Amino acid sequence: LQSKLPNVGTTIFSTMSQLALQHGAINLSQGFPDFDCPPELVDLVADAMRSGFNQYAPSPGLPLLRQKISQKTEQLYGHLANPDTEVTVTSGATEALFAAIAAVVQPGDEVMVLEPCYDSYVPAIELSGGVPVFVPLRFPDFSVDWQQVEDNLTEKTRLLIINSPHNPSGAVWGQTDLDELTRLTQKYPFLILSDEVYEHIVFDNQPHHSVLTVPALAERAFVVSSFGKTYHTTGWKVGYCIAPESLTTEFRKVHQYLTFSTATPLQHAIAAYLNNQEHYLTLPAFYQQKRDLFASLLQPSKFKLLPCAGTYFQLARYSQISDLTDVEFSQWLTKEAGVAVIPISVFYSQNVDHGVIRFCFAKKEETLRAAAERLCKL
Amino acid sequence: LQSKLPNVGTTIFSTMSQLALQHGAINLSQGFPDFDCPPELVDLVADAMRSGFNQYAPSPGLPLLRQKISQKTEQLYGHLANPDTEVTVTSGATEALFAAIAAVVQPGDEVMVLEPCYDSYVPAIELSGGVPVFVPLRFPDFSVDWQQVEDNLTEKTRLLIINSPHNPSGAVWGQTDLDELTRLTQKYPFLILSDEVYEHIVFDNQPHHSVLTVPALAERAFVVSSFGKTYHTTGWKVGYCIAPESLTTEFRKVHQYLTFSTATPLQHAIAAYLNNQEHYLTLPAFYQQKRDLFASLLQPSKFKLLPCAGTYFQLARYSQISDLTDVEFSQWLTKEAGVAVIPISVFYSQNVDHGVIRFCFAKKEETLRAAAERLCKL
Ligand SMILES: CSCCC(=O)C(=O)O
Ligand SMILES: CSCCC(=O)C(=O)O
Repeated sequence: LQSKLPNVGTTIFSTMSQLALQHGAINLSQGFPDFDCPPELVDLVADAMRSGFNQYAPSPGLPLLRQKISQKTEQLYGHLANPDTEVTVTSGATEALFAAIAAVVQPGDEVMVLEPCYDSYVPAIELSGGVPVFVPLRFPDFSVDWQQVEDNLTEKTRLLIINSPHNPSGAVWGQTDLDELTRLTQKYPFLILSDEVYEHIVFDNQPHHSVLTVPALAERAFVVSSFGKTYHTTGWKVGYCIAPESLTTEFRKVHQYLTFSTATPLQHAIAAYLNNQEHYLTLPAFYQQKRDLFASLLQPSKFKLLPCAGTYFQLARYSQISDLTDVEFSQWLTKEAGVAVIPISVFYSQNVDHGVIRFCFAKKEETLRAAAERLCKL
Repeated sequence: LQSKLPNVGTTIFSTMSQLALQHGAINLSQGFPDFDCPPELVDLVADAMRSGFNQYAPSPGLPLLRQKISQKTEQLYGHLANPDTEVTVTSGATEALFAAIAAVVQPGDEVMVLEPCYDSYVPAIELSGGVPVFVPLRFPDFSVDWQQVEDNLTEKTRLLIINSPHNPSGAVWGQTDLDELTRLTQKYPFLILSDEVYEHIVFDNQPHHSVLTVPALAERAFVVSSFGKTYHTTGWKVGYCIAPESLTTEFRKVHQYLTFSTATPLQHAIAAYLNNQEHYLTLPAFYQQKRDLFASLLQPSKFKLLPCAGTYFQLARYSQISDLTDVEFSQWLTKEAGVAVIPISVFYSQNVDHGVIRFCFAKKEETLRAAAERLCKL
């Protein structure tokens, strides 16, 4: 059997979480909260199950949930997505990313990826026979080099994948990024896949610059988000994709054969809870406090923190501690210092190693303190 | 935008359920129960959520659930699957089918499909660039013509997709089918994808002949099942795939980028409930009673029922009522007679129309009675 993904192993998230478990390390690697989701949300799931909502949801998602997503999107970004034809609920953002790529990438199509990038993009492109074209983000601020993007766009570029707030770096787009992107759409016919799962986690009073705020972008974009990061329920796997009708039609063709539908009681609960708009408006302050706490706790350490404008990830240089590669250092840190982290080089096609690791700070204060204590000893 | 699935529309299941809703018809089309799942299972989900199991499960599935699946498989089929390396939990059987196909089918590979077949197989093959090779099941008993299978196998056949108990027909394999298949594996190097989601719904005291009962088959097979049909929870979307380590390795590479993982609290609940082995042992009698009731209720009607050896589907000829095509008749029946059903021709590549429709009898007695009353009037 010849592997279709010969360069792919187990994702770094599974690998590091596993290693953390083995060594009893504090797990700041894979991105997930170690605190609870709103208890009302749990009650709503129980209610839905007890009301008998345990059979297939409609493949595009519960109508009420699609309506609520559409309302939220209009309020936040001024974009009116038709819930019947432009909103699809998926089994997590990962499924949405895969379905969008599978829906439009034909063998030989070029797909531009700004690296470092989330590790599911490239295998999904490859499984559709697409050719990834890599453009590096600038180091160390992870801003987009728009000239380089333009230089690498061609008539064969089918899709450009973007991601702000950016995982793993925590960088966040400004209005100029949307402007530059809009300019390029006037020159080339590519589609856009915008991964916006951290849309509600932007700091320092900045807005999230969604692709949906610009009609010229929205009309050629799949915009993917999820409730996992927003409601502290990464394990529920409820995401969604917003796209114009012509793209949604193709997206849904794939989605209906990929998973068909997403867990019905979870969709019911989220649809009911989405009335409670205040919850996600509290997230910037909630996570900024954690970002700032973690930074201040690491102040006495030898780690040098990079700026973090959004997401729940904090990058750090470790050159004053070690000259190991970032993969080696991450393993060492897990095994010897008892703190699991993610190396950044794995998010590059060529294993570019800037000597930077990623901490997830979506953790209880006590967890962050315990980790910092260990990290300050190095 | 050129569609990658130009021949695909909305699946027949969504279309007919939608039509049923519009016309207030009794929905015997899409396959799902209209009765509740075991209430203990619901309580177990609530317990899991309240115990904080709301973050990502390990990508291959919760270890306890994989262990329980492995135990059940050993007890029922005498096949010992290693839970660490040979069992993967997926977001429904649909995801498992898609992932298996995406994992091993390369552009140009032939994939043999016995038709009529479940409608997700062919689009999944096409998205991987595979070439479907169709072999019809015999009509009207939907048995496999092994000579024709052999005649169509080649060195380029990468995968053979099989399905017993069979949807849409309700036909069930015997030991000779496994024997014939085993003989062919000695001649050709194809892999097997066995869709066994109705494994616990076999009637008349017959056993389910799983591919896992034959080591020579199990060693080259992906065996897919799910808990949706077994626990009356089609909307929970928890399925799994059992395959030897070398195949599971490739399967998991795809799965980790397709959905990454499956809803954690649902996995916890099912893992806990799987102790309760009696539940699925009651299914044959439970559904056989419904099959027999429905058949006796339709006795005075002009429908001619075909044999049903397993699944919760009943095929019927309607030639004494109408000479419409099966698609037209299904629409007419939904709109005019108030009973939604599934036409069988849509499960053939060339729209072969035998004048047969499919009823789902996974319904409360009162639903079956109400539907039969309408059907007997025709
Ligand atoms: C699906 S596991 C990865 C979680 C995550 O988004 C991250 O850690 O970057
Ligand atoms: C995923 S909807 C289809 C349900 C089903 O298996 C059927 O009706 O055949």
